[in-house]
Amino acid sequence: MADPFPREVYVAGVGMTAFGRHEGKHAPELGQAAVTAALADAGLDYSAVEIAYCGHVAQGSTAGQKVLYGVGMTGIPIFNLENACASGTSALRSAVMAVGFGMAKVALAVGFEVMGRGAIPTGGDERLEAVARQGVPALPALFAALFLEHSRRYGTTVEQMAMVSVKNRAYGAKNPRAQFHEPVTIDQVLASREVAPPLRLFMCCPTTSGAAAAVITSADVARTTRHPIRVVASVLQSDPPMTADGLSGITGINSSAARAAYAQAGIGPDQLDCAEVHDCFAIAEIVHYENLGLCPRGEGGRFIEQGLKQARVQVSTSGGLLAKGHPLGATGVAQVVEAVEQLRGESGERQVPNARIALTHCQGFGGAAGVHIFAA
Amino acid sequence: MADPFPREVYVAGVGMTAFGRHEGKHAPELGQAAVTAALADAGLDYSAVEIAYCGHVAQGSTAGQKVLYGVGMTGIPIFNLENACASGTSALRSAVMAVGFGMAKVALAVGFEVMGRGAIPTGGDERLEAVARQGVPALPALFAALFLEHSRRYGTTVEQMAMVSVKNRAYGAKNPRAQFHEPVTIDQVLASREVAPPLRLFMCCPTTSGAAAAVITSADVARTTRHPIRVVASVLQSDPPMTADGLSGITGINSSAARAAYAQAGIGPDQLDCAEVHDCFAIAEIVHYENLGLCPRGEGGRFIEQGLKQARVQVSTSGGLLAKGHPLGATGVAQVVEAVEQLRGESGERQVPNARIALTHCQGFGGAAGVHIFAA
Repeated sequence: MADPFPREVYVAGVGMTAFGRHEGKHAPELGQAAVTAALADAGLDYSAVEIAYCGHVAQGSTAGQKVLYGVGMTGIPIFNLENACASGTSALRSAVMAVGFGMAKVALAVGFEVMGRGAIPTGGDERLEAVARQGVPALPALFAALFLEHSRRYGTTVEQMAMVSVKNRAYGAKNPRAQFHEPVTIDQVLASREVAPPLRLFMCCPTTSGAAAAVITSADVARTTRHPIRVVASVLQSDPPMTADGLSGITGINSSAARAAYAQAGIGPDQLDCAEVHDCFAIAEIVHYENLGLCPRGEGGRFIEQGLKQARVQVSTSGGLLAKGHPLGATGVAQVVEAVEQLRGESGERQVPNARIALTHCQGFGGAAGVHIFAA
Repeated sequence: MADPFPREVYVAGVGMTAFGRHEGKHAPELGQAAVTAALADAGLDYSAVEIAYCGHVAQGSTAGQKVLYGVGMTGIPIFNLENACASGTSALRSAVMAVGFGMAKVALAVGFEVMGRGAIPTGGDERLEAVARQGVPALPALFAALFLEHSRRYGTTVEQMAMVSVKNRAYGAKNPRAQFHEPVTIDQVLASREVAPPLRLFMCCPTTSGAAAAVITSADVARTTRHPIRVVASVLQSDPPMTADGLSGITGINSSAARAAYAQAGIGPDQLDCAEVHDCFAIAEIVHYENLGLCPRGEGGRFIEQGLKQARVQVSTSGGLLAKGHPLGATGVAQVVEAVEQLRGESGERQVPNARIALTHCQGFGGAAGVHIFAA
């Protein structure tokens, strides 16, 4: 791959729905709300959009068209991208490439998901689905095994996992669009229902519906918009499924994608002000601290215990998947909404002071590891 | 859109499985066979592939990874594209753009589908699915309505539809990879079971599994391969769903995509030697003759009756969807296999003499209209 992309790329507008249960709502309604908000934020009309990428997992083969036909019927190419939990970041990456390589001056990335109770983000993995059909929460079990291995090697504790949940629930309480608005204590996390020992309910992301959109533009279009944010790195690598018998599935490809992104941006992890990481489970955030180079390998547990003091970075200020929620296809795009608002200084109570550089990281089970970096 | 793409693009290798029932086979097995064949045809190793696009409809959110991990674990970005019956052409278009805009020198497009009896290619359309659940074959009914409208306006006859089936079954008999190998007569078509009056079984594409792949490369890579074929046009436009109350859904966007493709290639329809068109039903091929400019609007029925004499073009020489079969995600890529083999003079009994220019056309219900043109 010729990277970084040859033309400057900007996020000119972002929008999202609140994340939550959205009982009775359908993907077009949510997706259209996000797209309309993102276009309004950019001050651009839908007719300016030249190509659109729609990330979702189980919404139907032409769900993207159903969303976008409700915004406008302009005949532009509309692609539906599926990549398990990295579907949104796959749409984002495609839109960034479309502008970065000169295919379009205005590209749209939209992610959405309507999830019912019992939805299983297995990415179609037959092994996981077979397990899930037997009533065992397969993904929590896999991440419980990941915790046990990390704990065995590095001494990571259940309390340290609980601290991740406490941090992200505290941020969620400051984010009006998060699914959970109540802060929790370590004791409350440790007293919540056991899902897959030793993982507790509050250490697992909830079932969530929602949508998010980002308008990606060239430099000349960006200059006409109110507050564009530059994309300085965009990486997507394929990700062999995690296995329960070791850490390699979650450490290898995510570390590799992060290294590639830092190289593209010409920065190191010590220069990040904020980062949205794929905290589908509390242990995942701990391991991703290490994958993203925020702390040395094995230090993730101590990193959260010490209040992220080894770095300037603030992590998952949106509340992350744990508190904001995780509507599969929407997540990768919603992370960009948080990054852009932080870099614009528009994050209200959860604003990171003087945020200049933000990272987003998304992982799809069996699918992809995506890392993007944005600069004010 | 800045079109045509700024860098020359070639198909350096193609491969496909036979199309058919493939009882008990799974998508990875079929997809891997197609990819391996395409790479062997190009004389390239999988390690040369920089980015991969996988078209399918109902194979799981990370089905592309499951196919490609079996060929190699190189960490490249793998995108799963869904666009109803145009999923394969969406993958192809993405690979062509990736090379045409300098994102990669070697991109892979692969399409695959394992379909069971009763599979309904509704593209997730709720109206069609509701109809199908009531036991009515919804898509045949829609195309029956299309025939009735075309007949009312232009005098198109049931016999003319049968002639399309006869032509494509005759080509299928000459294509070892086609699902149906027996020629049929007009009388046999008209005597086949009534599916949605006046559409008969032999006027409808069958339920098919299969896979196809194309290796798309830059000019410098193409020069190292045995017989590259140049891509001179690549268009994908979004396609509002057909409605039963008129022709506009199938005429508007397909005509528009064809016009854009001819403009990119700098040729007219009279210069085509062969064309693979989306003949999901016999009436569709008739209407697409007109959409692609092979004959004037309303003349499609007479065009087949006169043996396509108004044009030099031979249509659906692979047997088309009617005889070769229609494994949804595979179709758009399999069309390229036929185009490339025709332009290389490797089509055996069904070879179009001195074929120099070939077109492929694919339509997704509610999804997309895709047109590509290739030159020897």
